[in-house]
Amino acid sequence: MAPFTTLIEFSNALAAAPDADAQAVAGAQARNGQLTKPPGALGRLEDLAIWYAGWRGTDRPTLDAPQIVIFAGNHGVCAQGVSAFPPEVTVQMVANFEHGGAAINQLAKTFGATMNVHALDLDTPTADFTQSPAMSEAECVAALQTGWDAVDPSADLLVTGEMGIGNTTPAAALGAALFGGTGTDWVGRGTGVDDAGLANKARVVDEGLALHTSRDPLEVLRCLGGRELAAMVGAIAAARAHRIPVILDGFICTAAASVLQKARTGALDHCVAGHLSAEGAHRKMLDGLGKEPLLSLGLRLGEGSGGAAAIGVLKAAVACHSGMATFAEAGVSDG
Amino acid sequence: MAPFTTLIEFSNALAAAPDADAQAVAGAQARNGQLTKPPGALGRLEDLAIWYAGWRGTDRPTLDAPQIVIFAGNHGVCAQGVSAFPPEVTVQMVANFEHGGAAINQLAKTFGATMNVHALDLDTPTADFTQSPAMSEAECVAALQTGWDAVDPSADLLVTGEMGIGNTTPAAALGAALFGGTGTDWVGRGTGVDDAGLANKARVVDEGLALHTSRDPLEVLRCLGGRELAAMVGAIAAARAHRIPVILDGFICTAAASVLQKARTGALDHCVAGHLSAEGAHRKMLDGLGKEPLLSLGLRLGEGSGGAAAIGVLKAAVACHSGMATFAEAGVSDG
Repeated sequence: MAPFTTLIEFSNALAAAPDADAQAVAGAQARNGQLTKPPGALGRLEDLAIWYAGWRGTDRPTLDAPQIVIFAGNHGVCAQGVSAFPPEVTVQMVANFEHGGAAINQLAKTFGATMNVHALDLDTPTADFTQSPAMSEAECVAALQTGWDAVDPSADLLVTGEMGIGNTTPAAALGAALFGGTGTDWVGRGTGVDDAGLANKARVVDEGLALHTSRDPLEVLRCLGGRELAAMVGAIAAARAHRIPVILDGFICTAAASVLQKARTGALDHCVAGHLSAEGAHRKMLDGLGKEPLLSLGLRLGEGSGGAAAIGVLKAAVACHSGMATFAEAGVSDG
Repeated sequence: MAPFTTLIEFSNALAAAPDADAQAVAGAQARNGQLTKPPGALGRLEDLAIWYAGWRGTDRPTLDAPQIVIFAGNHGVCAQGVSAFPPEVTVQMVANFEHGGAAINQLAKTFGATMNVHALDLDTPTADFTQSPAMSEAECVAALQTGWDAVDPSADLLVTGEMGIGNTTPAAALGAALFGGTGTDWVGRGTGVDDAGLANKARVVDEGLALHTSRDPLEVLRCLGGRELAAMVGAIAAARAHRIPVILDGFICTAAASVLQKARTGALDHCVAGHLSAEGAHRKMLDGLGKEPLLSLGLRLGEGSGGAAAIGVLKAAVACHSGMATFAEAGVSDG
């Protein structure tokens, strides 16, 4: 269906997205009931395995080829002083990703994931959304396309991550525009702003909300978002088209994902929340999506780190489900 | 120091246990402050890595050789009808472990852990603690010794697990005897007893508490515990002697660990809680130990499964800490 030339075409692609395989879900549920454990004793690992089986279309799936994709973008709204770090850190951290020195590189190695980094026009930040839309339609569509194309159709799990100095502010703006509320409800300390910085972020978000009044989700993304957020939207949508399950990362990733959920109810059925971020409004955003995080370890790094840290949990779930013996196979009395 | 011939000798071994390496902790803290991330952005992963570094005695540790040891025991108290499963399931599940069909086998494979299974006199259940002490001193010491000897000194992480039909009842009795309260405060549904079964478990625990009045921790273990619980006590103590960090599993494992903490304050400083079990009183027991679980996924299987599921979190923490570039190495501006 790609390449997209308009936001409407992207929206149409969402409408055409496949659902989970009901027969694989039923088969996985039946298998789960026969495994050598008391009913329900693996708790949420059982639900995860059945969910994963449904998207992979088999009652006994494997999880061997996770992919982490990281998108980097720069933000005109940094001119408003919304970050504790200077914008040049974005390109420096992209180099760090490419040289293997960032947290996400270590997590990718730990869980056997491939990792790809896409730097999106870092020399041309998005516009300051307190002055004009962050992106033109063409810029937004290009970023969605980059995200869509970044997904390896042969992956069996996707984690989307991001790097972009200042990007908790557009993410908060997305939260407010999509779920309601004001800047104060959605901003947090990001990489570490003080009380005055926090108040400033709230002001910036409120100015953006006042200037850009459309609440159409893709328009919200275009006017208040950023390239790396749009790319994550594209990647998560592409994963759905390929029936690749997704582990969402923290606040920025979840804000991007929320665009999809608001654009089409159920568009995130192939996604689980990897972790609860320390960024204040993440819980509220996850509640808005009806997603319960797998981990809650106080991470607030981005890069996909919280999503990647949760790969082990999903691997554990799938391994138990597909590898365990049944009561009959093992000759164990079943209660 | 092993072999032990009396409980006093075991107690003396606890007193001789080493502490974490303060220099390694300081070195790891210093390194953590230089890594390419905002301060504190990896949340609890940072604390875990520094803790692990201290026990391994290096500021830049690796985690390559986790060991899972599983101990199985049978319980005379099953005669009181405390489990939804018949006692013969213990030996059947040991065979399942040995043939690779249980949940813990899949988790060991997923996280690259070795796994050893020790069946402890399954044909000779402990005595019914409503009638007499569960174990003689010799039996208890033998189980402690088995646990102690089961630990591979070259492992760099230990997870202790158990299998023993009926063993949530002795674990609840340990909770009540060590932390206070009655059977009702500490019993749960285990593998799946109904309301009448739950009331029966509380009665059984209360009878045990009334019959065995010593609150000396090792006496509590001997009178109200079981062989697999004593073996976990021995293994966790041996890990301390070898400075091997431990991830605790769920309710039964934590009950065993509590014996050590009550016998000697700080005896569990080398342990983290792997997960919060669905077994009702586990949270209270962890609170009593001051341990915050890494995962909360509703597991209640035992076998070490919750501890093993958390290996990925600790691997992630150590990999980030030891593998990431510093700001200086990566040429990233540090805020």
